[in-house]
Amino acid sequence: CPCPLPSGDTALSRLVRRLLSARRSLDLCLFSFSCPQLARAVQLLHRRGVRVRLVTDAQYMGLHGSQIGRLRHAGIQVRHDQHSGYMHHKFAIVDRRMLITGSLNWTTQAIQSNRENVLVVEDAVYVKAFQDEFERIWEEYNPANYSFF
Amino acid sequence: CPCPLPSGDTALSRLVRRLLSARRSLDLCLFSFSCPQLARAVQLLHRRGVRVRLVTDAQYMGLHGSQIGRLRHAGIQVRHDQHSGYMHHKFAIVDRRMLITGSLNWTTQAIQSNRENVLVVEDAVYVKAFQDEFERIWEEYNPANYSFF
Repeated sequence: CPCPLPSGDTALSRLVRRLLSARRSLDLCLFSFSCPQLARAVQLLHRRGVRVRLVTDAQYMGLHGSQIGRLRHAGIQVRHDQHSGYMHHKFAIVDRRMLITGSLNWTTQAIQSNRENVLVVEDAVYVKAFQDEFERIWEEYNPANYSFF
Repeated sequence: CPCPLPSGDTALSRLVRRLLSARRSLDLCLFSFSCPQLARAVQLLHRRGVRVRLVTDAQYMGLHGSQIGRLRHAGIQVRHDQHSGYMHHKFAIVDRRMLITGSLNWTTQAIQSNRENVLVVEDAVYVKAFQDEFERIWEEYNPANYSFF
């Protein structure tokens, strides 16, 4: 496989391990998603039966290297905005109890070259605020609500 | 003034109020800074004698609408990276005790048009991690360490 899951104690491998701890659900709200290792971890969870939902930005989902098409092809539910502004969040919620958020877009460029931060928070007050935002966006971006004129 | 401080109970006015609560120091680590209202709040703190330090991204600081030149002109200390990767953080630390961080770049586009998040955290564990990162970057981007060959 050209993109093995990362090993060792890098920031990326720690992020992947947090994601792989999911047992029931993984809610992803990601402006940009081009990192193949992270996409592979998400696919693995989907195959294990974890319920994966992904919200992303319409303008970035089609860019070169985007993993969104691959994830959709694997059967993962993806929804996107239909606005000119960006869906600029970059967070994940594992099992509705662990929030992973920060400045990091899930791109190879960001992981390899940028100065970034990722917070892992289990405090219910913060998790709930982001879970509520996720559910709002998930409903708002329901394809049943799209308008094409 | 063309850019009054925001009033009312918007997300922007709440962010400005948090910043204006600074009494001793404001450490800013911002990928992109073009929002005039936020720049005005930072200048106000500087004039009040609060110690303001600003770290930013070299490639974005010169973009149209950037407030970095204006802040430097006002006498605020600014340092920037000299790498091809982005200094992609977007956080502020007020009085070394309150961390403000999230997906939000300090741009008018982000504030007006995007879906974004901003966390305000006073838990010392999180604040210290970001303060340590700020001090590392502040030293690393010290102009005395620049190389020009």
